Amino acid sequence: MASEQAGIEVFNQGGEGPFVLTCEHATNEVPEEFGNLGLDDALLETHIAWDPGARPVAEALARLLDAPLIMPQVSRLVCDCNRPHGSADATPARSEIYEIPGNRDLTLEQREARARRFYEPFREAVDRTLRHRLQSCGAAILVTIHSFTPIFKGKARDIQLGILHDADSRLADAVLEIVEKEAGLIVGRNQPYGPEDGVTHTLRFHALPLGLLNVMIEIRNDLISDRSEQVGMARRLADYLQEALASIGTADKTVSHA
Amino acid sequence: MASEQAGIEVFNQGGEGPFVLTCEHATNEVPEEFGNLGLDDALLETHIAWDPGARPVAEALARLLDAPLIMPQVSRLVCDCNRPHGSADATPARSEIYEIPGNRDLTLEQREARARRFYEPFREAVDRTLRHRLQSCGAAILVTIHSFTPIFKGKARDIQLGILHDADSRLADAVLEIVEKEAGLIVGRNQPYGPEDGVTHTLRFHALPLGLLNVMIEIRNDLISDRSEQVGMARRLADYLQEALASIGTADKTVSHA
Repeated sequence: MASEQAGIEVFNQGGEGPFVLTCEHATNEVPEEFGNLGLDDALLETHIAWDPGARPVAEALARLLDAPLIMPQVSRLVCDCNRPHGSADATPARSEIYEIPGNRDLTLEQREARARRFYEPFREAVDRTLRHRLQSCGAAILVTIHSFTPIFKGKARDIQLGILHDADSRLADAVLEIVEKEAGLIVGRNQPYGPEDGVTHTLRFHALPLGLLNVMIEIRNDLISDRSEQVGMARRLADYLQEALASIGTADKTVSHA
Repeated sequence: MASEQAGIEVFNQGGEGPFVLTCEHATNEVPEEFGNLGLDDALLETHIAWDPGARPVAEALARLLDAPLIMPQVSRLVCDCNRPHGSADATPARSEIYEIPGNRDLTLEQREARARRFYEPFREAVDRTLRHRLQSCGAAILVTIHSFTPIFKGKARDIQLGILHDADSRLADAVLEIVEKEAGLIVGRNQPYGPEDGVTHTLRFHALPLGLLNVMIEIRNDLISDRSEQVGMARRLADYLQEALASIGTADKTVSHA
């Protein structure tokens, strides 16, 4: 079901629905030559290296929505594909409370080399997939799946689900309206992060210029720690997204550039 | 005094002070093959194509501070060098109230081609210059000079001078403290735009990762419409910046990465 290209993986590539999923922090894989970026193995298991639980939720969601799902095959610490090409944010020298020795004092050339190897194939796959869905399905809706840590810098986070957007909030508004009616989930708009933290890069880069409906979903990772929670969350998200899409109506799926 | 490289111009390249200036919207030049991007000549004279007055202010400031000044040699409409590599914001399909026909429905490949030709040389020159100043002077302070239109979408703007910053506000704080004591200028922090509008890209990309002091200065363009106003504004800015730097103290010019 998965197809591998250099540096990226596309799950359910033949998906025929209007949704296109991305999961930028799906893996904590660090290629051997980076020497663990100077970090202990144990630290590479934590949220600083990836979004635990996000990949299984995204895969289950891709199946439910019949959506292609595009994922980089590298840890966000080597190259964060949800940050601009070659930016220092894509190769952070610090993450939460931890220094990342292998990212210290990188030159522009070193940052660019990582972007060419890891970010460019991801970006091209997302672009190609969105345009293909637009052409063959008449619509493409970008949804990016992330998870966040329940404890950040020693403080517990109450919020359980974040619905994030950049300048185009149509889909996020519709999802929020639905989720807020549901009991049992503490939800926030542009929480625990927002566009001012640079987290809406994929939405901004790919969805906004094409006028595509788009939303970023952040799930607190302690709520998706086992298979049954992951599938349960994917089912809820599939329902929210399909209901939200129906409430927006088909006429408004793309912005005309004419 | 100016040295030309492919696509960029470095004014006062041998400047020996700690300041490094950029002026991303110095020119309204559109290479012939872009066919005016489909716009009337008259529209290319307005603020949508460049920051009127910013270049002469930046050049006078470069002389006063003995600072190198780096400028792309292309209109922001062809490639906005204060936006991320290949982003749609760098080749806007719309600016203020105007459609830009030559930027409509650009593919990722077309956006990337513009980035390679115009953005990459600028970015490399800024990086090289900052590292050279750091090495030879022990400090590098990034100041980017812009102007804004007094009337935006039909509304008059009262603010005359904007002092903008991203995550590191040290220099902006010090400049604001000085400017606010002065009579006769309506000044604002992160106005008329701010980091949420994506305007702090150069600061974020170049200054933050190196821990360099940095600030973005936005001048209302009707205050710098002739030579004497431009030189007068440059003198005031030179004083503010030098006084701000002195108030911060030399010990704090860079953040140690050790």
